[in-house]
Amino acid sequence: MSTGDPWIAVDWGTTRLRAWRMDGAALRDSSASDLGMGGLHRDEFEPALRALIDGWRVSSAPLDVVACGMVGSRQGWVEAPYRAVPCRPVATEPVRAAAQDPALRVWVVCGLRQDSPPDVMRGEETQIAGFLGLNPEFDGVLCLPGTHTKWAQISAGEVVSFLTFMTGELFAALQGHTVLRHSLDAPGWDDDAFDAAVADGLAYPQKLAARLFGLRAGHLLQGNAPAVTRARLSGQLIGAELAAARPYWLGLPVAVVGSGDQAAAYMRALSNQGLSTVLADADAMTRAGLIRARALLKEPTS
Amino acid sequence: MSTGDPWIAVDWGTTRLRAWRMDGAALRDSSASDLGMGGLHRDEFEPALRALIDGWRVSSAPLDVVACGMVGSRQGWVEAPYRAVPCRPVATEPVRAAAQDPALRVWVVCGLRQDSPPDVMRGEETQIAGFLGLNPEFDGVLCLPGTHTKWAQISAGEVVSFLTFMTGELFAALQGHTVLRHSLDAPGWDDDAFDAAVADGLAYPQKLAARLFGLRAGHLLQGNAPAVTRARLSGQLIGAELAAARPYWLGLPVAVVGSGDQAAAYMRALSNQGLSTVLADADAMTRAGLIRARALLKEPTS
Repeated sequence: MSTGDPWIAVDWGTTRLRAWRMDGAALRDSSASDLGMGGLHRDEFEPALRALIDGWRVSSAPLDVVACGMVGSRQGWVEAPYRAVPCRPVATEPVRAAAQDPALRVWVVCGLRQDSPPDVMRGEETQIAGFLGLNPEFDGVLCLPGTHTKWAQISAGEVVSFLTFMTGELFAALQGHTVLRHSLDAPGWDDDAFDAAVADGLAYPQKLAARLFGLRAGHLLQGNAPAVTRARLSGQLIGAELAAARPYWLGLPVAVVGSGDQAAAYMRALSNQGLSTVLADADAMTRAGLIRARALLKEPTS
Repeated sequence: MSTGDPWIAVDWGTTRLRAWRMDGAALRDSSASDLGMGGLHRDEFEPALRALIDGWRVSSAPLDVVACGMVGSRQGWVEAPYRAVPCRPVATEPVRAAAQDPALRVWVVCGLRQDSPPDVMRGEETQIAGFLGLNPEFDGVLCLPGTHTKWAQISAGEVVSFLTFMTGELFAALQGHTVLRHSLDAPGWDDDAFDAAVADGLAYPQKLAARLFGLRAGHLLQGNAPAVTRARLSGQLIGAELAAARPYWLGLPVAVVGSGDQAAAYMRALSNQGLSTVLADADAMTRAGLIRARALLKEPTS
């Protein structure tokens, strides 16, 4: 099956490192660890990567590694400068990161920045590039749910503007580090509670901090189950986000790039607003974007 | 100076325990520890209290202790049931807590509950009672800043309704447990940044989650100082709270019961809306309320 074009695609975020063994555009194998950028000093990146990929190397031949995400931040392996929007999401050669192993040629994709209002992304630009590679005619809006959910306006193959919400990180901080943890001490989910909370959050986004305490009071006084409380918490946060992102999604084609429960929640919330939204798998878009980034290398190994 | 009427007033919250040695209505001494309700099992409350107050006891005579706050929750020393609003903030005899020391007679003030929308308070009812004891003709709104800020509508000596915001806890969770911690790694405050953020939060409360990430991006791209970022974070949260609490404060007399930087921030934000707000010291109101609660004991020791 090999086309004799081996390389490694890497998604390296703050808390996770994922590596894919590629053969041209074909996925051959995958590996992951929790050695995210956030826990590593600069000289620890190469060992963390090699622990994942050395088992895949069958010779000492030069091997290209193309990575995206927080690995390119100032605290990362190498700082890959932000490119200013409007621009194509991935259009310049990635930045070379220094490695001890002379056969390892590591490249990091640049992030994007918006000067007004100030905003940044690292990693999502690669997913957007992958999505646009597969959907070159797409004009509309991409929603990329995550720790920091991004909404990106796409026109003529360029990211025109984008807007980041701290919704995912808010959910995690509220669930783990506030009084709400006592009301979320069992798993579960309730679709009806989610739908009602999205509608309420969209209609009364300013009431968020009061609604949050209302979740605690609803547990204490009405015995609301953790499944209901969790779905309401998510719904209130996503509803408030949709209220603020309305200029992005109203009347435009919307695609969600994500996976798992979080993407499903956004899909459901958008569907409740009468939108027909398409879902693109985040990992597949990341790999497709890294394939495009690799095509920009001026001296690939093969 | 002693009137021979010794007792102990206690404010026992989730994270802090404070005790005041009282002589009738006069404050004689104070003591505090971080043995809050949240870290104690039921049999650890009495030792935690005695560690603070045993040095004040000059005889084995019976001694009344009147406490308010989370010490009366289900996880506290004794569960003091919620009383439903509308009602006077402190109007029934506090609940007796069991103690090993037969000379220690411990009483816990009941909290308040509101059934629709569901809401609860423990501790603030005592501050409200203290405020109304000193201002018996007050009709209007009390704002009680804290981990969970309360807005209470007061009429004819009763709490008519109240609304809790998780603003203080949100600030702490965002500062301590999100990416914003990297932009808040030095002390400081900026009044102008606070004022602008309050105005923005009031006008666009739905944008909160986006504004939060904007604080991070503003640090990365514009080098905003921690003092500016901290004041903006506080201003965005308080501005959004004021937007939702508008039915409470618009056109009504408002008093803030609080202390320190947090109360000052609320006073400034309300002043920016053209309100002339009075400030009452939270600890003084707590003690005044506990004095009123003690007057309800059917068998005081003296």
